[in-house]
Amino acid sequence: MTLPPEFELIARHFRPLAGPGALGLTDDAAVLAPPAGRELVLAADAMVAGVHFLPDDPPETIGRKLLRTNLSDLAAMGAAPLGYLMTTALTRGTGSSWLAAFAAGLREDQAEFGVSLLGGDTVSTPGPVTLSLTILGHVAPGRALRRTGAAPGQDVWVSGSIGDGALGLAVLQGELPADAEGHLAGRYRLPRPRLALGQALAGLATAALDVSDGLVQDLGHLCRAAGCGAALQAAAVPLSAPAAALVAQRPALLPRLLTGGDDYELLFAAPPAAAAAVAARAAACGVDVTRIGQFVPGEAVVAVRDARGEMLRLDGGGWSHF
Amino acid sequence: MTLPPEFELIARHFRPLAGPGALGLTDDAAVLAPPAGRELVLAADAMVAGVHFLPDDPPETIGRKLLRTNLSDLAAMGAAPLGYLMTTALTRGTGSSWLAAFAAGLREDQAEFGVSLLGGDTVSTPGPVTLSLTILGHVAPGRALRRTGAAPGQDVWVSGSIGDGALGLAVLQGELPADAEGHLAGRYRLPRPRLALGQALAGLATAALDVSDGLVQDLGHLCRAAGCGAALQAAAVPLSAPAAALVAQRPALLPRLLTGGDDYELLFAAPPAAAAAVAARAAACGVDVTRIGQFVPGEAVVAVRDARGEMLRLDGGGWSHF
Repeated sequence: MTLPPEFELIARHFRPLAGPGALGLTDDAAVLAPPAGRELVLAADAMVAGVHFLPDDPPETIGRKLLRTNLSDLAAMGAAPLGYLMTTALTRGTGSSWLAAFAAGLREDQAEFGVSLLGGDTVSTPGPVTLSLTILGHVAPGRALRRTGAAPGQDVWVSGSIGDGALGLAVLQGELPADAEGHLAGRYRLPRPRLALGQALAGLATAALDVSDGLVQDLGHLCRAAGCGAALQAAAVPLSAPAAALVAQRPALLPRLLTGGDDYELLFAAPPAAAAAVAARAAACGVDVTRIGQFVPGEAVVAVRDARGEMLRLDGGGWSHF
Repeated sequence: MTLPPEFELIARHFRPLAGPGALGLTDDAAVLAPPAGRELVLAADAMVAGVHFLPDDPPETIGRKLLRTNLSDLAAMGAAPLGYLMTTALTRGTGSSWLAAFAAGLREDQAEFGVSLLGGDTVSTPGPVTLSLTILGHVAPGRALRRTGAAPGQDVWVSGSIGDGALGLAVLQGELPADAEGHLAGRYRLPRPRLALGQALAGLATAALDVSDGLVQDLGHLCRAAGCGAALQAAAVPLSAPAAALVAQRPALLPRLLTGGDDYELLFAAPPAAAAAVAARAAACGVDVTRIGQFVPGEAVVAVRDARGEMLRLDGGGWSHF
């Protein structure tokens, strides 16, 4: 009896990604002992070709982007990664070379982030390639970083730089010129989950999330969870050198950076008294962190002011899936 | 600031499905303490409209089918369910009434199977509706039912009845007449995960899986895992009354029942000496089980013989995703 082609595809490309507990992807499910004395942290994200990645993105980066957006959710909870399950709905024409590159990218990230494939499903679709990934992590009991917990008077912090992902998408779509190093496109295709920083902030940050839908909208989530507002200084928002160069040429881009999404940086709250400790722990992780505003009493509104203190008008509050 | 529509949709339809650990679906991830002293069991399945369900299937049954196929994987491991994460890629036109019915179906099954929604993601797609679900369960350490472990001389057992799902699909596609009770279509749309039976078989069955790709192909998986063959008596394969009536009229349908897929029954191996215990435990669960063949020495080939002892020729070994 010959096996249908998907078994051969899975065996060739995905089985080498399987780790402890995956039972070689040959059983009905994975079986693993959870880390003793830890809580589980679980998140899932989906990506659709043409919506969340470009159909002609290199296949090496597509699986990695999905894995990294999920790892970013773990980072935002202060959790350490454990493993993942992935389902792939592939078009019939998906060739073995595409799958090989897709799997090679994942293998690279598995080594970098210390995770492995636990299980999943491969099906065919007449529509766009659709991927879904569930990440499994762990955290010390009661130490998960929640979205609730910010309070008026606390600082608004963000890691890394904001806007590169949105600009990278515009570069890849031919709307903006590429930077020489390919930094912006690289940030769109390969987010950098701030796992070490997230774990280092446990017990220090009062609230956290990862910026996926746009800085202003995601800051709004922290405000709603806290029942307060936030004042954001646009000039304080950290930009990469290529992003700063583009904004210097075209100041009208700034609102887009603040609302654009695809940043996957950590946005968190901490009392002013904790500022030195936050900076020290971030430095120990090798990640820049920047204070960009304060939580303020009042409604859950994010007020954004430019360098002259004038209110910035933002067209969109952030990325909407619909 | 108004929230984008997907937040409102998720809040209205999916938040009522959230259980302990889901943090109201408002955080970056779910956080839960794993059951003490148990191993985790994890599986994921995807479904595409027009491939794994019919686009005009009632929305009440679509999410339930996906949940039940995943629960069936837990059943095949002898595991108890804990919760699930789900990603939904929906077309822009998906209305609130469709979503309400989709969620209502899930709510019904959550109550029946004792699970709740832990997290997920809702995105838009230009293509067919694509759903992915990761199920989380638990089992006593070392007690998971694996696919490996069958041996020559052991019996082949199956739960419930075979072929209803494949016939139900043919009924829904207008190829076969419907039975008066709608049993066949119901079995296609709503599989019955054999959770109690799976748990009752721990320590008794030597190998198990759930029949999703067709009885003969899935029996082939047990054979390959065991390094032996199987002799299957087609006349012993349990059929429901509507399926038996159709086969009596059209004997040519029988091979299709044996290879058709969508059964979600448990197929398992047990030594002949355990037969009485298997029957007793199944009876205690209220599930029929039937001996349909034996594992035999030799290559991993499934030989199917009809009531006269003649070899049945089967065109396809089972359902292929590609």
